[in-house]
Amino acid sequence: MIELNFKKTGGLIPAIAQDFASGEILMLAYMNQEAFAATLTSGKATYYSRSRQTLWVKGETSGHVQVVKEIRIDCDNDTVLLKVEQLGGAACHTGHRSCFYKKVENGSIRIMGEPVFNPEEVYDK
Amino acid sequence: MIELNFKKTGGLIPAIAQDFASGEILMLAYMNQEAFAATLTSGKATYYSRSRQTLWVKGETSGHVQVVKEIRIDCDNDTVLLKVEQLGGAACHTGHRSCFYKKVENGSIRIMGEPVFNPEEVYDK
Repeated sequence: MIELNFKKTGGLIPAIAQDFASGEILMLAYMNQEAFAATLTSGKATYYSRSRQTLWVKGETSGHVQVVKEIRIDCDNDTVLLKVEQLGGAACHTGHRSCFYKKVENGSIRIMGEPVFNPEEVYDK
Repeated sequence: MIELNFKKTGGLIPAIAQDFASGEILMLAYMNQEAFAATLTSGKATYYSRSRQTLWVKGETSGHVQVVKEIRIDCDNDTVLLKVEQLGGAACHTGHRSCFYKKVENGSIRIMGEPVFNPEEVYDK
């Protein structure tokens, strides 16, 4: 039995998605107990959407599912690391491969790389 | 000017530390506005300790400072990614190189790797 500590942060803990092959960090989202259980059972990264207040199977709209290859837990059991295969080539709703496409340079933001897909073609408006 | 969204999560946002050379994820901690500003200014990863409720320069006790090589921000400005050089070879207070040394396997936890240092020799008891 795997016991995670959801209490410290009010029921939600951060989950990092990392590309299992390249090591690139793709995104960070949140999980409640149910999302973690669903991820274990289904093998697809499942988060809790704070804005929609519901379970969120990543890629259910876009088709860009994250196939879970490995799950790691941190020392104090309050953060999850998913090593995933990112279907569709991009994790970010903006079409960028990774959500972390903004680089801090000399006190301002520089956009790194180009979107892999056009969000308007993937999501319903 | 870099505007992060601290409001959504009550003043603290998650910050991921990743080894800048290997891509290994070392730890996740939290930052408030002051911790982010201190990280930018000092070039050393500085977090907010939720347990001690104070700024926390990573490595101030152990000497295992994280030298910041690059900073990334995610799409909605509420998560920070630090690419760091981890002095002392280990980020975790347990002596493990990464805090994510617990692997989920068949519904239980398997400890991966050996500690790099003995915590009792590094921290005051």
